[in-house]
Amino acid sequence: MKKIQIGMIGLGTVGTGVAKVLQERAALLEEKTGTRLFLKKVCVQHPDRKRELSFPKGILTRNVHHVLDDPEIQIVLELIGGIHPAKEYIMEALRRGKHVVTANKALLAEEGRDIFRLAEQKKRRVQFEASVGGGIPIIKSLKEGLVSNRIQAILGIINGTSNFILTRMTETGCTFGEALKEAQKRGYAERNPSLDIDGVDSAHKLVILALLGFGQEVPLDRISIEGIRHVSPKDTQYAGELGYRVKLLAIAKQTSQGLELRVQPTLIPKGHPLAFVNGAYNAITVRGDLVGETIFYGEGAGRLPTSSAVLSDLLDLAQRIQERDSPAPPLHFKSGVKRIKPMASLSTRYYFRFSVVDRPGVLSQISRLLGRHRISIASVIQKETHQRRSVPLIMVTHEALERDVHRAIQKIDRLGVVKARSIFLRIEEV
Amino acid sequence: MKKIQIGMIGLGTVGTGVAKVLQERAALLEEKTGTRLFLKKVCVQHPDRKRELSFPKGILTRNVHHVLDDPEIQIVLELIGGIHPAKEYIMEALRRGKHVVTANKALLAEEGRDIFRLAEQKKRRVQFEASVGGGIPIIKSLKEGLVSNRIQAILGIINGTSNFILTRMTETGCTFGEALKEAQKRGYAERNPSLDIDGVDSAHKLVILALLGFGQEVPLDRISIEGIRHVSPKDTQYAGELGYRVKLLAIAKQTSQGLELRVQPTLIPKGHPLAFVNGAYNAITVRGDLVGETIFYGEGAGRLPTSSAVLSDLLDLAQRIQERDSPAPPLHFKSGVKRIKPMASLSTRYYFRFSVVDRPGVLSQISRLLGRHRISIASVIQKETHQRRSVPLIMVTHEALERDVHRAIQKIDRLGVVKARSIFLRIEEV
Repeated sequence: MKKIQIGMIGLGTVGTGVAKVLQERAALLEEKTGTRLFLKKVCVQHPDRKRELSFPKGILTRNVHHVLDDPEIQIVLELIGGIHPAKEYIMEALRRGKHVVTANKALLAEEGRDIFRLAEQKKRRVQFEASVGGGIPIIKSLKEGLVSNRIQAILGIINGTSNFILTRMTETGCTFGEALKEAQKRGYAERNPSLDIDGVDSAHKLVILALLGFGQEVPLDRISIEGIRHVSPKDTQYAGELGYRVKLLAIAKQTSQGLELRVQPTLIPKGHPLAFVNGAYNAITVRGDLVGETIFYGEGAGRLPTSSAVLSDLLDLAQRIQERDSPAPPLHFKSGVKRIKPMASLSTRYYFRFSVVDRPGVLSQISRLLGRHRISIASVIQKETHQRRSVPLIMVTHEALERDVHRAIQKIDRLGVVKARSIFLRIEEV
Repeated sequence: MKKIQIGMIGLGTVGTGVAKVLQERAALLEEKTGTRLFLKKVCVQHPDRKRELSFPKGILTRNVHHVLDDPEIQIVLELIGGIHPAKEYIMEALRRGKHVVTANKALLAEEGRDIFRLAEQKKRRVQFEASVGGGIPIIKSLKEGLVSNRIQAILGIINGTSNFILTRMTETGCTFGEALKEAQKRGYAERNPSLDIDGVDSAHKLVILALLGFGQEVPLDRISIEGIRHVSPKDTQYAGELGYRVKLLAIAKQTSQGLELRVQPTLIPKGHPLAFVNGAYNAITVRGDLVGETIFYGEGAGRLPTSSAVLSDLLDLAQRIQERDSPAPPLHFKSGVKRIKPMASLSTRYYFRFSVVDRPGVLSQISRLLGRHRISIASVIQKETHQRRSVPLIMVTHEALERDVHRAIQKIDRLGVVKARSIFLRIEEV
């Protein structure tokens, strides 16, 4: 097995996350993918600064050419953000025959044209899973999973800051300003939040999604962009009364008049799954002519989700580099049965439905039996019915053991006051 | 560019869908992936039967060896279902150095061990995106997109039939039997629905998901399986009152006591996105230590969604075969700006919030102006407030043109009775 050498430019939040995972789970990744990634050089501004993560000597460097000029480095990971000099570094890496991984949505949206063109010329790949939707594999899904579809529409909640603010306004009735302050306090919004709340970040991501979904370059200035500053708690409230939720949606739709492209605070029906995307979560709906409607949901930002996306790109490239020499083994898994938890030791909450006679003392008889089996009741519903023979008695329990539940139910079903087999369902507090 | 030759075994619903897409959009697929797929042989039981799709002479054959023995065929697509002879065909294809694509979840769950082992030996790939979740790219996401994660849990609504039945019981209060009949009428359930409603189909899929997520073979008989026959409309109703929805969940969870594996009708909190997965839709939640909670949602079955998944596998393999000779060009898109629809011709429904004085005649003044601009009102909310200066007047329109809305709002904002800039938001009936 050949080692695949990586050079990284920038060691901020995401970079540190990626480096950490590479250090800590090299073996797991090798097992899963058949490739071994090795971080050879990391270009940082202050190599001597104290850091969360320690690197072997010689890996950190101030000089970007130690990354770009190293012929052993096959993949360059750009994580400095911004347009310049990120663009120049990426172009130089491609010119030197390296593949590139980046999370830089602003750069791809504004200068992607030059970068993709050069990559094509040099027959090198530029991967950018982390540029949209944090750890959600939406880029791979559009590029590969849904490749055979004619895409009809892409609708995304792809800015976590704005979604946090709108969710908070909806839930608490607070103003935009108050919600923004809360977002800043929790680290969901920057001191200068304009890129997020004015829709520009969503538009950057929409350019990337439209490129993949519709195979079409979209200049940023052709997207109609409207932020959420003017949305008032009155709007989120009235929208609710009318059966809607207000979300900052990024929309790209194929229409007979051309591609419709817009980022706008938008009312969507309460019953649609997108309406339940709350807080800093992201979700992207992709409508394809074969697949119908699909939705991809997850955390839209943050060190670990973004690292997950970057690593997926790195491992993808590494596998492809390696396959060119020898085909990668098809599917990695350990043979033999590992430990499987016996169902009897499941611990969860339960829903019970007993069919009992409507007579005093029944509830206490049943709850005593449950208690004896360490099952404690969280709530009870018993309603009047017009059925003579039996009435339903509903209970929800606190956490209990499956084994205990089986034993208790067996005993309960033998009680004279119980008129039919008791039903129990498990509760999953997803 | 080399043509990649495919052999197909079985030409039922999905097979016909795949063949149709290959015939109709060869050019699009070639443009997107840089590979050209060519269906060389299709093995069917009755080559002379009249079919929805016509094939050039010599493609249809009764003899499976015309597929398996053809050295030009590099990928074999198995679509006959069932364990035998599907397994023998796949094993033979692998022995002859071909890659395999299959949608056969029962086979993979029960005999996957032998198949994956042989594939590994022969350094060939077995791809099976269509085996779980219809067109949702969940296999690729687990295998590639989330590859760097330690998976903590997978929870899936992965049987559309059961989900349709439970949804119907929840929404209409009908019994299991009535809901099943409706599902059969609509083609969502088979005449013998046992595989679906007794949880076995979900368990098959869970074996596959656990293999990918936890790198672990799971014998089917180690999964605790419970179907939905015993769920009564009382349960869906009481669950609702308690704040839950009943769903047939397939669960695989890493716990300190080993892997927890079960398929059971389960109560999940109403507020969780999985609770909104209704009808024949599927959704899979994957929890990873880096990515956090992700959800993948889409149609769980049907000709076109399944074809979408199969084609993704075929194109994936074709690209990998081709890359071994020459690296595939990195990203396919057309340069130059195609037609982008001007925002002014957007046609959608709108939400308006006017700040008006509380005086008779205001509503008619505004609605007259809207009418003059071809904007028709669908609903109005006007409430008493204790604010002196102005009251909010909320309107939702039928479809209107953005251009007309801008003009109307301009005029309305000049009215004396309007006290602040009017707000309008677009409605997306996703």
